[in-house]
Formats: sequence, C-alpha cells, structure tokens
Amino acid sequence: MAVYTQVNSDQVRAFIAGYDIGPLETYVGIADGVENTNYLLFTGSGRYILTLYEKRVAEGDLPYFLDLMDHLSRQGIPCPVPLHDRMGNALGRLADRPAALVTFLEGIARSRIEPGHCRAVGRALALLHTASSDFGKSRPNGLSLGAWEQTLFQSEARLDKYDKGLYEEVSDDFARIAASWPTSLPTGVIHADLFPDNVFFRDGEVSGLIDFYFACNDFFAYDLAICINAWCFERDADFNITKAGALLKGYEENRCLSAGEIAALPVLCAGSAMRFLFTRLVDWDTTPSSAVVRPKDPAEYLGRLRFHRAARGPDSYGLGRT
Amino acid sequence: MAVYTQVNSDQVRAFIAGYDIGPLETYVGIADGVENTNYLLFTGSGRYILTLYEKRVAEGDLPYFLDLMDHLSRQGIPCPVPLHDRMGNALGRLADRPAALVTFLEGIARSRIEPGHCRAVGRALALLHTASSDFGKSRPNGLSLGAWEQTLFQSEARLDKYDKGLYEEVSDDFARIAASWPTSLPTGVIHADLFPDNVFFRDGEVSGLIDFYFACNDFFAYDLAICINAWCFERDADFNITKAGALLKGYEENRCLSAGEIAALPVLCAGSAMRFLFTRLVDWDTTPSSAVVRPKDPAEYLGRLRFHRAARGPDSYGLGRT
Repeated sequence: MAVYTQVNSDQVRAFIAGYDIGPLETYVGIADGVENTNYLLFTGSGRYILTLYEKRVAEGDLPYFLDLMDHLSRQGIPCPVPLHDRMGNALGRLADRPAALVTFLEGIARSRIEPGHCRAVGRALALLHTASSDFGKSRPNGLSLGAWEQTLFQSEARLDKYDKGLYEEVSDDFARIAASWPTSLPTGVIHADLFPDNVFFRDGEVSGLIDFYFACNDFFAYDLAICINAWCFERDADFNITKAGALLKGYEENRCLSAGEIAALPVLCAGSAMRFLFTRLVDWDTTPSSAVVRPKDPAEYLGRLRFHRAARGPDSYGLGRT
Repeated sequence: MAVYTQVNSDQVRAFIAGYDIGPLETYVGIADGVENTNYLLFTGSGRYILTLYEKRVAEGDLPYFLDLMDHLSRQGIPCPVPLHDRMGNALGRLADRPAALVTFLEGIARSRIEPGHCRAVGRALALLHTASSDFGKSRPNGLSLGAWEQTLFQSEARLDKYDKGLYEEVSDDFARIAASWPTSLPTGVIHADLFPDNVFFRDGEVSGLIDFYFACNDFFAYDLAICINAWCFERDADFNITKAGALLKGYEENRCLSAGEIAALPVLCAGSAMRFLFTRLVDWDTTPSSAVVRPKDPAEYLGRLRFHRAARGPDSYGLGRT
C-alpha cells in the first residue's frame, strides 16, 4: 500500500520512450499494492500501469506472470495486457528494478459483496482456468503443503505468541490436511489470490482481474477453495452458504467440477485457510507497529480454518443450491 | 506519501452522489501527499481529486484554503477548483474526516530544474500574488518568526542531537534575523510552500499550482524567498545565481518589486531557510525509522541558511541578470 521506489518524470519518460504509447502527460503513484510499486500513467494514447517489481517478487518468475497475462488476454480474459517495447520485450528495467507497463483496467473492486458478485466471480474463475489450458509455461505453487509445513514448524513460538495453544491446534489440522490432500485432481494455471481487491466490476459484471503475481500451477479446485474463503464469509467464521452456492453455480456455468473435485472441497478449503493464516501470522509478527501498511488480521483465517474443520462434507458448501 | 484513510467504493459513491459529476467509474489511492489522503476519481464527467484532510491540517482553516482556490481559479490561476455539492458546499465529510473534491490538473512536476522553469515559476508566483489582492479572507502565517522562536527554544537538544553546536549557531542566526525582519513590506496571500513538487509544467509553461494548505497572509517577498530556496540551489549550499536571476526576472514581468522588498531579500531568504530547517528537524526527530514516508534531510536547509548568512546583499541573488 505504498510507493516503495520513487521515480521522477525524466525516468518515466526515458522508460516509456521505448514503447509506442505517445508522450507522457501526467503520472501519479498509486497507494494500492502491498508487493510492488505502481504508477498510473496518462500518455497521448491512454492510461497505463507502470509496475516496478520489489524484492518480494522473484525476478525469475516475472516472464511467467507477464506471458500468462499476454496469453489470457488473447483468450479474452479481462486482465492487464503487458505492453511490448519496440524490441519486443515486456520486461524492462527502471530504477534498478524489473519493470513493466500494462494496460489500465476499468471498473471498481467491490467493498460489499452480494451473491450475484460471487456468481460472476465463479464464472470468471472458470473462464480463467479453461483459458489457460494451452499456456505452455509452468510454475510450482510456492505456498502449498510443503511451505505450510516449513512455516508451521518454524513458527511454534510465533503461533503461540499470537494465541496460546494455537500451535498444537493447528498441528492437528496440518496432519489431517496433509493425510487427505488430493493427488490427482485436474490441474492447470490458477490465480491463487483472487480476493475481492483483485476483481473489478462494472454494471454487476466482472470487468477486470488483476494481480497475477501469485499465479502458479495447482489444482483448479484449490483456486475455487481460495475464492470460497475470500468471498463467502461475513466475518471470521460466519460462512454464507448462499454466496458459496452462487460461486460454485457460476463456476459450473463455465466448467463442470468432477466428483473428485467436489469431494475434495472441504480439505482444499481448510488448506487454503491454513495458507493465508500462516502468511498473515508471518506479516503480523514481522511488520513494525509504525508501518503504514497494516498487516491483515490472522484471526479471519483462523475462524475459517475452524469452520472447515467442522464441515460435514461437500454438502456444507452450498453445491446445487440456487 | 500514503493513503492514511481507506475509503471503499460505497463510501466514495455515497460522497459523490451529492455532486453533479456523474457515476463513479474507477478510483485509485494516490501515494503522493505527506499531509492528507488523496484519491484520483474517474467519473462519467472526468477526473477529480478527492482529498480527506488528516489531522495535520486544522479543520477551521479549510474554508480559507478552499475559498482561496475558488477565488484564484476565477482569476485564471491554474489551481485545483473545488467542486460544490448541490447544497453549495465545497467542504463535506467522509470517513469521519473533512473532505473535498477538486478538479484534476494536467501536467508533470519537474525533477530537473532549468532556468526557464524558474522564470516560469516567477511569473506564476507574481500572478498568484496579484490575483489574490481582492481575496477577502485572511489567515496568519503559523510558521513565521514567533513559531521559529518557539521551535528553536524548545529544541536545543534536538538541534545538538542532529549536529553538535547547531543550537548555538542557529541562535545567532535567529537573533540577527529577528532584529532585521521587515515590518512594512507589501502583504497579501502567499502560497508558502511552492516547491517543485507543487508546480506542474506542460510544454515548458506552468500548467498547475497545487497544495495550498500552507497558504496564509504574509509578505509577498517572503514567498519569493521560499521559492529561491526551493528552486535555485543545486545541492545543499550550491546556489545557482542564474536560476535565481531567472526567477526574479519572471516575477518582475508580472509584478514589480519595491526597493524595500529587494533590500529585504537576504533576511527573508535566511528566515525561509530557518523555517524549513526547523520543521525538517522536527520531522527527522519524530519520524520512526520504519516509516514509509522518509523525512526530508534538514542538511539541505542548513546549507542554504549558511549561504544566506554569508550573502553580501540583494546583489547576491541575481537581480537584473538576464
């Protein structure tokens, strides 16, 4: 939520001179974005986002992310389209950082989620999954089971500092989740971070999907589980089955779920809750109290994890409701 | 340099519903601005800046600032124009803060200053001074002599923490400046913070003046002294007399300086350097090291203060050079 790297107008002008987007008219630093620095540019030909990649994004992964956005946009997914300079490169350098220009997307992220938005997100997620089926590149999910195990066992003190007894509680969850984690579900490119912040709406329909910097190859149904957690809870543990039903219904309008995917929903939801619980605990523990970017509260995801632990089965998620 | 107060799209929509600017299309938080929270809004009718005033700005001063921008824009000064809601109010409330909508100004702040920019700024400053002559309201300068005295004598430890012996050095300056501070120069509304960040250019001409939240009533020539310090030094103490000559020449194209104003330039420049030295020392001392907004280095203004202390007289400032 900040501009980490300041660039002046001469630097911006020099950077965009390599692209056919006309002269710089105005630019402003954007406050959104926890990971990277973003500027909104107005040039003779329109509006663009200039992103400077900060150290939380591995430079070696950037071609995957940029190529993915290129691929998805060609398939009609409303994602940012990377611009290519006159040499054909989508990735450049600015202020000693990797940098890229992408198109600016219209629309507004929702602050108040209604079931209709969940259904629209479900549809969009399924389109994303089918559109990436012939994307040639692959990137492992760096925040899956193995990473949770590392984070979990590295952070006994951290978990108990947050909430006495949490380590023991979550260790049990981990053992259970690891034992029943699926091995052979349909796999492909997933967004892996499709929170309401990253979905723009216009007239009730999805007009933009952004922030592909956690995208990776994993189970499609795991992406759906991430969305169930991100879109279908009212508060920490107050599950809204109507929203989840709408999300799943929207998804199945564009891609049918297999019996295996449906059966795995509870464990995938629990795993996804664990992933965000752990990363939020790390941020909570390592962010100085004076920082402008406030870490998100891990409690939300602890509540979700407890909900999924208690879920009876796939029926608890509103499948087949209308 | 941050969004201090987050507002969601429902809040923004509810706020702008009172204005005739069409529906909200997109909005982004802007990273610029140390004092307040700013959002850039795109609506059916154009681009606007939504400002939420944070606690560093006194709420009682806001009508002065907004009325001043209204007045100046009617006189043709390219400043943000406050929008009035259907009740006629320029000042509203949002997220428990005073808030206002103003027009978005085209243009780009200069990172590399050339003498031609100084001349253009001088012209714009003189127009600002003459345009405000019939502005009916008045606001004392809260960062003038009296405030320096308070800050100076409150901060002996702070000054010496920054640089051993600084308190004694600057006490001498203060005594000298206070003794020769002018009493009867032409007075009116001054911008009081017209740094390069606050001036937008387009095709070499000034296209916008922003950030009127230090504006007050004081000597016009003191505003000029602030600009000499802000625009005409290359590094801490490396005075560029060509730039200062261009600034003064530009100013005199639109408003002639009196003999008294010219004679007072050295003490006004020294006083202005002292004002920014003191406020930067406060920021330097009170900003946590982990803050995203880095405080500006007081050393720049200590160097300028030392330059002005040694200046022979008004001739040192490039008056009459072309």
